[in-house]
Amino acid sequence: MTDFAKDLIDAVIATHVALRTQTPLVQCLTNVVSSNFMANVLLAAGAAPAMVDNPEEAAAFVQVAGAVLVNLGTPTAAQVEAMRLAVKAAADLGRPWVLDPIGAGGLAWRGGVAAELLAYRPAVIRGNASEIIGLAGLGSSSRGFDSSNDPADAVPAARALLAHSAAVSASGPVDHVLGEYEGALRLFRIAGGSALLPRVTATGCALGALVAAYTAVAATPVLGLITAHVHFALAAEQAQTQAQGPGSFVPAFIDALDAVDGPLIKARARIDGTVLEG
Amino acid sequence: MTDFAKDLIDAVIATHVALRTQTPLVQCLTNVVSSNFMANVLLAAGAAPAMVDNPEEAAAFVQVAGAVLVNLGTPTAAQVEAMRLAVKAAADLGRPWVLDPIGAGGLAWRGGVAAELLAYRPAVIRGNASEIIGLAGLGSSSRGFDSSNDPADAVPAARALLAHSAAVSASGPVDHVLGEYEGALRLFRIAGGSALLPRVTATGCALGALVAAYTAVAATPVLGLITAHVHFALAAEQAQTQAQGPGSFVPAFIDALDAVDGPLIKARARIDGTVLEG
Amino acid sequence: MTDFAKDLIDAVIATHVALRTQTPLVQCLTNVVSSNFMANVLLAAGAAPAMVDNPEEAAAFVQVAGAVLVNLGTPTAAQVEAMRLAVKAAADLGRPWVLDPIGAGGLAWRGGVAAELLAYRPAVIRGNASEIIGLAGLGSSSRGFDSSNDPADAVPAARALLAHSAAVSASGPVDHVLGEYEGALRLFRIAGGSALLPRVTATGCALGALVAAYTAVAATPVLGLITAHVHFALAAEQAQTQAQGPGSFVPAFIDALDAVDGPLIKARARIDGTVLEG
Repeated sequence: MTDFAKDLIDAVIATHVALRTQTPLVQCLTNVVSSNFMANVLLAAGAAPAMVDNPEEAAAFVQVAGAVLVNLGTPTAAQVEAMRLAVKAAADLGRPWVLDPIGAGGLAWRGGVAAELLAYRPAVIRGNASEIIGLAGLGSSSRGFDSSNDPADAVPAARALLAHSAAVSASGPVDHVLGEYEGALRLFRIAGGSALLPRVTATGCALGALVAAYTAVAATPVLGLITAHVHFALAAEQAQTQAQGPGSFVPAFIDALDAVDGPLIKARARIDGTVLEG
Repeated sequence: MTDFAKDLIDAVIATHVALRTQTPLVQCLTNVVSSNFMANVLLAAGAAPAMVDNPEEAAAFVQVAGAVLVNLGTPTAAQVEAMRLAVKAAADLGRPWVLDPIGAGGLAWRGGVAAELLAYRPAVIRGNASEIIGLAGLGSSSRGFDSSNDPADAVPAARALLAHSAAVSASGPVDHVLGEYEGALRLFRIAGGSALLPRVTATGCALGALVAAYTAVAATPVLGLITAHVHFALAAEQAQTQAQGPGSFVPAFIDALDAVDGPLIKARARIDGTVLEG
Repeated sequence: MTDFAKDLIDAVIATHVALRTQTPLVQCLTNVVSSNFMANVLLAAGAAPAMVDNPEEAAAFVQVAGAVLVNLGTPTAAQVEAMRLAVKAAADLGRPWVLDPIGAGGLAWRGGVAAELLAYRPAVIRGNASEIIGLAGLGSSSRGFDSSNDPADAVPAARALLAHSAAVSASGPVDHVLGEYEGALRLFRIAGGSALLPRVTATGCALGALVAAYTAVAATPVLGLITAHVHFALAAEQAQTQAQGPGSFVPAFIDALDAVDGPLIKARARIDGTVLEG
């Protein structure tokens, strides 16, 4: 292992310890399919969830939240209004917020919402490859909710989205994370995970919430994003050894999110980094 | 086994293979209790879920969906407006849609909604016996959400509902499916399932979504409906052998939906058919 | 064991038998995170859930419900209107209803809603210690959704809330229940449970729903409240012996809610009672 790789793993472990020590409160404005699973993922990983997503309270709650997740999976007019108020409050208060742009590339209404929210500069944009391509407007042929593109194909789109955000990730069999780290724009590829992840609903959504949790405690958004992907991928890898199928994967995965610790990260994390620029 | 029964099982297996091959995209306008479980049932069975149920996007999404599910479990004014737009789009575009009329017989507001939606001719109406009786207006004494009637009692109601729909099913210990098949109006009775199914919330709702998935790939609505019931019943039967109670039944059932295949259907499906007319 | 303690356990067992015999229908107006888990908790414990929470139907449904739960976890303007209509109908019809005031102490809008609903006199108020302190306006420093206070600290707040409700509980490692029983105002402390309960989302919410179920069949609200806490605590204790972590705890807990019976209550319930007044 190179010195760079060793230093990066140490920084990831320190960020993981910070999550467990600080238990950040994550305000989630998310889709109805994901809410229960997402809250359990956050609790198991070491964060505290709060699904405050009405226009009456969303901005006020940002004051006590460590980070905010905005997920466009099942937007309603009222929830979108709450999203606007929450991201404005986050920008004003300097709280990191994460955009998960489900379906924004395929559906005009939420595409307009995503474009509007981007003006408030999310710390991180996280999606699967099709969603990242869709959001960047590069003409995805996705049906809007699947993950038919390979993350490697999404690198140009992710790079374009860095105009709006400090870090971007496209998840898939190998997750691709882009952002500036140690003075250069870099691409990190994180291996691990499980073929069962896309067979369970809202796993990507829950990863977005975990990214928000890590941005609340990380030195930089890109380090929080990398740590979230590593934590998630290692837990999925462990869970697959216990699971008989996509049903038994769910409780095993939640158990594994709780069980991941520094020594496991040191032993099993697989991250490779490439300089793209600088 | 008669030639008719053998041919029917072969058609069911072919329909199941079509689901696995085509992974139809199912747009679900459903209740909040069911959404996560329903999405996981669809993914495990072999379809792709998308819960697009706001008035701004519901009609547009029908264009890319293979089928649409409308479930009246927890309607809001906005969701009902989305349902109207979605079923109109489905009718215009020739997409099959499925009505699950939860509580329509017991609550006047959603009863009116159901009556209005029926004008757009669902491919299938699916409910438990009490719901089918309630929808047909035959004076169910149900509390609105339970399944106190026997499916056999719902046959006259199901038959009346064939004025609105190509196929109707009333689920219960033995599921009853009505529709025209090989030139005659027939009643199919599908055995299997598990006594734990009604002990878990939203299992009926999830079956409705699976019916929608199968109507997207089946030669006829009634064949899709039969295949969904067979797939569901066999998975429940398998899951019961693994479960300690209603909690452990859930992951086992999702695993089993994934595991069901042609040979299992051939070995274990129990369908009997009776000509009602013609 | 004293005669008082023996009589109390016998009354708890009789109340549990009444739940299993009567299967009360519980109308839940609850948050989106909890709805699926809550419905499964009610079904496993022996009640029947119905999540009817729109303004068009909420009041009408109270007529067929045995009890009503109002949980303030993710209120929307429309759901709050439904809550107003439902508790007014419950008051008019003499149906018991339960208030779970999540976040009411920390967020002004829902705090106002809670204050307004209290005028319709819930049979029971249930929360964690921070929520009970927050609702009573005693200046909780909670972040609104956690349980950082000890239930013993919430006793003065719970006592103050008895001005609005027949019984109040603050849950935690040892649950604290206050109410009049056999001619005196008493404090009951119920031990058991599991350290995994606060690691799973919506367990407190689901307990609130189980409280509502028991108030539908109990001789008095305080007896229903005690029985719900005992049932929940024993099931959690059993589940912990099966669980590898917070993920596998969930199915084990649902199984255990189903398995709790009179002999287990007799053998394992730990309740101590103190006279506070009278």
